Amino acid sequence: MASEFAIIEQYFSDIGKAADNTLLGVGDDAAVVDLPPGQQLVVAMDTLIEGTHFPQDTSPADIAYKSLAVNLSDLAAMGATPAWFLMSLSLDSDDPQWLSRFAGSLKKTADEYGLQLIGGDTCRGKLAISIQIAGHLPNDQFVTRQGANAGDIILVSGELGNAAMGLAQQQGKLELAPALQSKCALALNRPRPRLELGPFLRRFASSAIDISDGLVGDLKHILKASACGARVRLEALPVDPWIEQHGAWDYALGAGDDYEICCTLPAELSAEVDTWNHANPDCRLTPIGEITESGYYLQDGDHRIDLDQRQGYRHFA
Amino acid sequence: MASEFAIIEQYFSDIGKAADNTLLGVGDDAAVVDLPPGQQLVVAMDTLIEGTHFPQDTSPADIAYKSLAVNLSDLAAMGATPAWFLMSLSLDSDDPQWLSRFAGSLKKTADEYGLQLIGGDTCRGKLAISIQIAGHLPNDQFVTRQGANAGDIILVSGELGNAAMGLAQQQGKLELAPALQSKCALALNRPRPRLELGPFLRRFASSAIDISDGLVGDLKHILKASACGARVRLEALPVDPWIEQHGAWDYALGAGDDYEICCTLPAELSAEVDTWNHANPDCRLTPIGEITESGYYLQDGDHRIDLDQRQGYRHFA
Repeated sequence: MASEFAIIEQYFSDIGKAADNTLLGVGDDAAVVDLPPGQQLVVAMDTLIEGTHFPQDTSPADIAYKSLAVNLSDLAAMGATPAWFLMSLSLDSDDPQWLSRFAGSLKKTADEYGLQLIGGDTCRGKLAISIQIAGHLPNDQFVTRQGANAGDIILVSGELGNAAMGLAQQQGKLELAPALQSKCALALNRPRPRLELGPFLRRFASSAIDISDGLVGDLKHILKASACGARVRLEALPVDPWIEQHGAWDYALGAGDDYEICCTLPAELSAEVDTWNHANPDCRLTPIGEITESGYYLQDGDHRIDLDQRQGYRHFA
Repeated sequence: MASEFAIIEQYFSDIGKAADNTLLGVGDDAAVVDLPPGQQLVVAMDTLIEGTHFPQDTSPADIAYKSLAVNLSDLAAMGATPAWFLMSLSLDSDDPQWLSRFAGSLKKTADEYGLQLIGGDTCRGKLAISIQIAGHLPNDQFVTRQGANAGDIILVSGELGNAAMGLAQQQGKLELAPALQSKCALALNRPRPRLELGPFLRRFASSAIDISDGLVGDLKHILKASACGARVRLEALPVDPWIEQHGAWDYALGAGDDYEICCTLPAELSAEVDTWNHANPDCRLTPIGEITESGYYLQDGDHRIDLDQRQGYRHFA
C-alpha cells in the first residue's frame, strides 16, 4: 500500500484555491492562516462514517461531496462565508480509482464553494471522513440558536423530507415515480448547503439552525436556547405533493438529512421574506409557524399534537 | 443509549477555560472565535483509532490525554501556543464510566495546556477520536520544515525510542526492568508535547518537525522541503543506556511515537543550545548531526549507513 504521505501528496495537496489569508497549507506539521480585517472565524466539525451516515455502496464522488456539504451547512446556519477546511480520512484500502474519484469530487466541490483544504491526515481504518471547516463573518454578526422571541415567524428553506424519501427508496422501503426518485436521490446525495442565505440571516434573523437532524428536533434546540415555544402548521410545511397525498409527514418532520435552514424573523420583517423569495426562487423561504411564549405544538387543522413528546432523528437513539 | 446531544451536554460542554477570543463555544451549529491582534492561527488535525493508534485495552484517561498530546505536538513543532480545539468522537458504546473518565482526563489536559473545547460532534462507530487543534503565533514567526541550510546543527529534544520500547513491552516482545518499564510506559501513554520550545524555535530554528513517525523518516521531510542532506551520528543520539547496551537502535531511529521535536539551527547559534539546556533540564536539546548539501547518512563510528534506503514508520507501510 502507498504511504500516508504519498496519498496526501498525490491526491490532496491541491484541493481548492489558496486564499490570501492562507500563509501555509498542506504539507507541514500544521497550517497557518490569518483573518481578514474586521472578520471573525466560524468553525465546525462533522464526521461521516460508512454504514452510519451513508450506505456502503455510496459512490466516492457522492461521499466527498456530502462530507463537505454537511459541514458547509453548519457555516450557512451561522451566516458565514466558507474559507478553508482540514480533513482526516480513514481508509480501509487505498484503491487508486476510489481515491482519485473521491479527490476529484472534493476538489470540484471545494472550488465551487471557494474553500481550500489546508491540512489533516490519513490513516487506516473503517472508511470515515472527518472534516473541520472554517468560514468568515463580519465582526459580531453571527446568528445563533438563541434570540427567537414570541411572535417571530418561523421559516424553513427549500423542501422537507426529500432526502429521507431518497434513503427509503434506496433501501427498497418506497417505490417512487422516476422523476420524484431522481429529485429525492439528489436531495440525499447532493444536498445544497444554503450559503446564499448568509446576508439575509445576518441582517434579519433572530435565530437560525441547520435542520440536518430533522425539523422537529432541531427547532427544539432553538426553543431551548431561546427559552420560548412554537406552533408549527402542518399544512404550511414545504413538501413534495407525494408526502401530502400519502400523509407521510414523518419524512418532513423528523427523518432528518435535509440540509435546510430553519430561522426565525421578527413578524414586522415579513415583507423581507417576499423580497428574498422573489430574488431567490431556488432558495425559497416558507413561513411554517410562529414562536410562542411556551409549549411546542404541531397544528393539523383542528388537531393539535404535542411535539415535546416527539424526538428528532438521533445518532444514539 | 443516550442521544448525541445528551452526551455532549453532559460530558463535553465544559472542557477547558474560555479565552477572551472565543465568542461562541460548544452548543450551536458552529463556534465563533477571534484572533488576538498581531497573531496568526496555526491549525492541525490528527485522528487516533483504536487498534491502529492505541491498543484496545488502553485506559480512557490515556486515550484522551494522547489524543490531545499528539495534536499539541504539531503546534509545538510550529512554535505556536495552544488556543482551542474541536473533537469528533466516534463511540461504539456510551458506557457512562468510560465517558466520564475520558472527559475528566480531557478536561485536565485541556486545563493544563490552556485549551478550550469549542465544538465537534459525537457519532456511533468504532472508537476513534479526531481532534482539530488551533494555536496562536506572533505574525509570520511560524517555523516550517523548509529553511534548513548546509552547516546547520540538527537537534532533537528529549530521549528517543522510549515510546516504542513501551509498546514492545506491552506487547510482550520485551522484558524491561521495572524502572525502565515505567519510564517507557509513560513515554508511550503520556508523551509531553514540547510546547515550551516555542520561543526558542521562533527565535533561532531554521526548520522544525515533530518526529512522531520516527526520526529517520521525519528528518527526511525537512531534507526534502529544504532541498539538502544530513549526516546523523549514531553515538550522539539521546537514548536510554538500554538501547546502547542492546544495540537496539531501531527503537530510536525508526519506530516512532516519540512526540519530540527535531529542529535545525545555524551553527553560529550553538551557544544558544547550552543556554537553553541550562535553563530547561527537562526539555534538553541534543545535537545529533549536521545538515549537508546532499545525501542522507547515519555515521556509526567508521561505518556509514545510507538512510535514503530506510523508511520511517508509515501507517500504510
